[in-house]
Parts: sequence; structure tokens; C-alpha cells
Amino acid sequence: MILGLDPGTTAAGYAFISGEQAPTLRAAGILAVRAAGPGERLCELHTALVRLMKQWKPEAVAIEKLFFAANAKTAMAVAEARGVLLLTAVLGGTTVYEYTPAEIKKTITGQGNADKRQMQKMLRLALPETRELRARDDVFDALAVALTCHYKEKGRLHLANA
Amino acid sequence: MILGLDPGTTAAGYAFISGEQAPTLRAAGILAVRAAGPGERLCELHTALVRLMKQWKPEAVAIEKLFFAANAKTAMAVAEARGVLLLTAVLGGTTVYEYTPAEIKKTITGQGNADKRQMQKMLRLALPETRELRARDDVFDALAVALTCHYKEKGRLHLANA
Repeated sequence: MILGLDPGTTAAGYAFISGEQAPTLRAAGILAVRAAGPGERLCELHTALVRLMKQWKPEAVAIEKLFFAANAKTAMAVAEARGVLLLTAVLGGTTVYEYTPAEIKKTITGQGNADKRQMQKMLRLALPETRELRARDDVFDALAVALTCHYKEKGRLHLANA
Repeated sequence: MILGLDPGTTAAGYAFISGEQAPTLRAAGILAVRAAGPGERLCELHTALVRLMKQWKPEAVAIEKLFFAANAKTAMAVAEARGVLLLTAVLGGTTVYEYTPAEIKKTITGQGNADKRQMQKMLRLALPETRELRARDDVFDALAVALTCHYKEKGRLHLANA
């Protein structure tokens, strides 16, 4: 079971996939954050992820490497959330895999500069269940990083299971 | 008891001060991080802070608001560490106070644009124990944010103790 995460300031997208050869979508959605204070928001995110990980017991967590965004203040808040998700994943006993946006695009579509439409098309081909999925961008981003991890690490994760 | 924290990528400075009127330095130092992976580093930072908080039982944690630094990659890593420190503080049951660099400088020296020498001079006047302290900049930064919290919130923190 691989958990893909897409961190944000008010929400984080998540997607669980499993399967040795053909991957299957198991669950996907949003960890929404409602608390007011910055510390409390991070705490809410942590608690929500702990709950999800207890339910689905992923062995790997995949997350995008974060680059500097246009809005520095947002970028910092996203990085804080990302730090909390990474910590929670490691405390939960999973292995963390990180991929750059270009690596994810190249793995899913064959092109490092694929646009959103190409990405969603290839995600729907790889995971037929997502044809029914009407989700926000951050859920698709979480799915893309989980699928990248599946393609890149499945040999290694398989060995870990053996 | 107030804990001041100064987050960094490979270490975080910390300083504990206490006292109702005149503040006293209780402990100060560095949480050093040695692990290789980014998730493991955040985990080490978290564990070290949990240990410190159990020992000293602060009621408040003070931390500088983070602004965009010259090096975006470093800034992101510092923000991840900061997110983990904030989470750990809130999970530990403390109240978190955040101050901008200008607020800290103005509170300690009276000038929002004070330089490092002026800051260390005023810190030594306010906390005579620090005259003997030969410490890294991040320890002095942690001390400055803790002392800012002491000056700004002592009325409120006193009520919390009553």
C-alpha cells in the first residue's frame, strides 16, 4: 500500500494505491484543516494523517519535492505543512519517497513538462477507477505522486513484503 | 517557563527563561540533527524537543515568524523544521507565540532594525547569566524570542499560573 500526499496550507490531498503489477486506487480525498492558529492547523493535519495511516497501514509514503513558489508566504506555510506530514509518516513507521514535479510528470506521461490535462488522462488510463473520480487538483496530485512511487519502487517494495 | 526556539536545517537553538518580573536564563543550547534523510531529520528534531519539553515543562513556546530568505531551498527546509517544532509544541500542550524579526528587535533594544551586536548587548543586560554564555547565533536568537515573549506576555502568563 502506497500513500501519496499533496501538502497545502488549508488542506492536503491524499491517495492510497495498492497492487503488485497493476495498481488499484483504494481511497482518495482531502485532509481539511479548520483550526485558526498555525500550530493548531499543523496539529489538526498531523492528527488526521495519523488516523488515515492507522486505517490503511501504508508501507510507503510518496510526496512531491517542494520548490519555491511565486508567493513566498504561501510557500513557507506549505513547507511547514510538508514538514509535519513527513514527520508523521516517519513516526508512523513508513518509508518516505520524494520526487520532483518533473520526475512525476515524466513517470506518469513520459514527458517532464506534461500539462494537467495530459496528467489526468494518463492517471485515468493507469487507474480506471479514477474515471469516476470528480476530485480537486490536490487529490489528483496525490494520486500522481503515489503512482510515481508505485512505478519506481515496486521492485523494492515487493522485496520488502517477501 | 518560556521556551524560545530558533529553527534551522541542521540544528535548532533553544533557550528556557523563567521569572515573573526579572527573567532568569534556565537553560540554553542546540538541538543538533545528524540523520541523513529529510523525514528522519525532522523526526530527530521532534524527538529532541519532546525530551527537552518533558524535562523543563514550558507553558509557552516562542518562535520567530519566518520570512523568505535569500536561498529559497534553505528557506523551505527551515520552514519544514519550523512546522515540526510548532506541531511538537502544540502536541506538548503549550501555547505558541510568534513574533516577526522586527518585533523581536524592537522589544529587546527599542529599535526594529537593531544589529546583532546591539541585540547581544541588550540580552546580556537583561539576562546577566548570558555574560558567561559563549554560544552560537541560533542560541542567542532563541534567547531573544523567549525574552520577547516574556516582556509581551508576562501579564497573561502570570494569570495562567494564578
